[in-house]
Amino acid sequence: MNAHPEDHARIADVFDPKKFLDVAEHYGHGAALGYKYQDHGVDWVEMSLPFRPEIVGVPETGILASGAIISLVDACGGAAVWQKLGKFEPIATVDLRLDYLRPAFAGETVLARCECYKMTRSIAFVRGNAFIDEQRVVANVVGTYIRNP
Amino acid sequence: MNAHPEDHARIADVFDPKKFLDVAEHYGHGAALGYKYQDHGVDWVEMSLPFRPEIVGVPETGILASGAIISLVDACGGAAVWQKLGKFEPIATVDLRLDYLRPAFAGETVLARCECYKMTRSIAFVRGNAFIDEQRVVANVVGTYIRNP
Amino acid sequence: MNAHPEDHARIADVFDPKKFLDVAEHYGHGAALGYKYQDHGVDWVEMSLPFRPEIVGVPETGILASGAIISLVDACGGAAVWQKLGKFEPIATVDLRLDYLRPAFAGETVLARCECYKMTRSIAFVRGNAFIDEQRVVANVVGTYIRNP
Amino acid sequence: MNAHPEDHARIADVFDPKKFLDVAEHYGHGAALGYKYQDHGVDWVEMSLPFRPEIVGVPETGILASGAIISLVDACGGAAVWQKLGKFEPIATVDLRLDYLRPAFAGETVLARCECYKMTRSIAFVRGNAFIDEQRVVANVVGTYIRNP
Repeated sequence: MNAHPEDHARIADVFDPKKFLDVAEHYGHGAALGYKYQDHGVDWVEMSLPFRPEIVGVPETGILASGAIISLVDACGGAAVWQKLGKFEPIATVDLRLDYLRPAFAGETVLARCECYKMTRSIAFVRGNAFIDEQRVVANVVGTYIRNP
Repeated sequence: MNAHPEDHARIADVFDPKKFLDVAEHYGHGAALGYKYQDHGVDWVEMSLPFRPEIVGVPETGILASGAIISLVDACGGAAVWQKLGKFEPIATVDLRLDYLRPAFAGETVLARCECYKMTRSIAFVRGNAFIDEQRVVANVVGTYIRNP
Repeated sequence: MNAHPEDHARIADVFDPKKFLDVAEHYGHGAALGYKYQDHGVDWVEMSLPFRPEIVGVPETGILASGAIISLVDACGGAAVWQKLGKFEPIATVDLRLDYLRPAFAGETVLARCECYKMTRSIAFVRGNAFIDEQRVVANVVGTYIRNP
Repeated sequence: MNAHPEDHARIADVFDPKKFLDVAEHYGHGAALGYKYQDHGVDWVEMSLPFRPEIVGVPETGILASGAIISLVDACGGAAVWQKLGKFEPIATVDLRLDYLRPAFAGETVLARCECYKMTRSIAFVRGNAFIDEQRVVANVVGTYIRNP
């Protein structure tokens, strides 16, 4: 997750995750993977990755590529940081840890919900997960993002 | 990274990372992203991700999506585990940590080299990095994979 | 966190975190640091580390040593695994990630609450935090433990 | 690892890991655990934790407490950051990941060697390990520290 505020001149300075993701859906890797906005709160954002054949990691088993899921949670974590900030500013992922709890399969829509649970002057701390539904959590994630890298 | 040995019936039981990746290049998310085999040693594998427009994360800056890079290192880490084992057996990523050191840009080929530095009866420990060349390391990675999950 | 069931012959086979910690308080590094049992639920345990001068990391600032806090959360995470299992069995920490949110200071009692949020046949996934009170979270932790290493 | 430059007024402004650790040995948690300076290079520091009974985690097996080992590598990682900087400045651990490869036992001296492999304006990236000797690596560590938190 690397972004600079000038990248977003086309959308309002006050961060609106729905608008942001409506735009992001049409550009770059997010467009290639097909993220969708789902929901947000004061310090969290929820996104989804509807199924498409290119995100299958192992065709014989239909297991989705872990990389596609990580891409989703990394993007969702960055959106949660902007949501907590209430505005765009340049951020970059410092590090990310994923714990894989169970695979997701072809045909399933993967959801991600990330919360920015702590913000300092320079570092934003994020945690969240990727899931199919409440009973089927795919991955747990924690990460840190740097502000104005 | 989730795979089962029956998925690989088409290639020899003795693990050959070049042959494996020649096959993997044509299937699933690896094919979508376009991984290539580069090199290997006793306990490590090197792979590459040649540039393609779909892996750009932020079109305005040309920064590559971190998710595409994570996909590459996760796949490379799994290949390193099979390389150290000398054979296929089912493995799954337990957890993965990435530290992002600098962005990669549109037009650059990202390489990943992962080493399986420790193997127990049930857990394989991997470390490595993603890089453009020796002077430009993009990410540092450590992870654990479970054998016969 | 490394333990073997025979180590615990002196206490009942059914895991009781209070009894366990009453015993653990008198042995080894736990005794040196002075952990105390606080509370538990179906899949979580809460422990505390009352202040003592030896856990100050930087005498001039009074900031507690991060290592003492990690020791506490690692022990608490292991107890959460046994609590979820409902019995002792050999476990070992595979890996642990800590995010430091703010320092703890001389005179403060550090609490840790860890939950075993997912258990497979071979791996237990833990998350939790160290805190002074609800408003002052010191560290966020995630980790994996292997069963019968 | 939290420190402020005024804490170190007693030693020269140019960082000398040997002098630093000679001082640190006599204060706080480092003194309680008994760290010793071993060696250093341009961007790395090596420290040791000679055996003492209080660092045993499980008396019956003689396995050393993982927390004591983490304390050592966290302190060693911080020293590596100062070594790379060539001077003291306030730093704080942002996050730390440890992979446990094998236990250390009562009677063994644990060594830690950490390298600051990347430094940005605001973040220092560290990696290293804890070991008994070259054949017996106890833990692998990666972490990030923030400058001037």
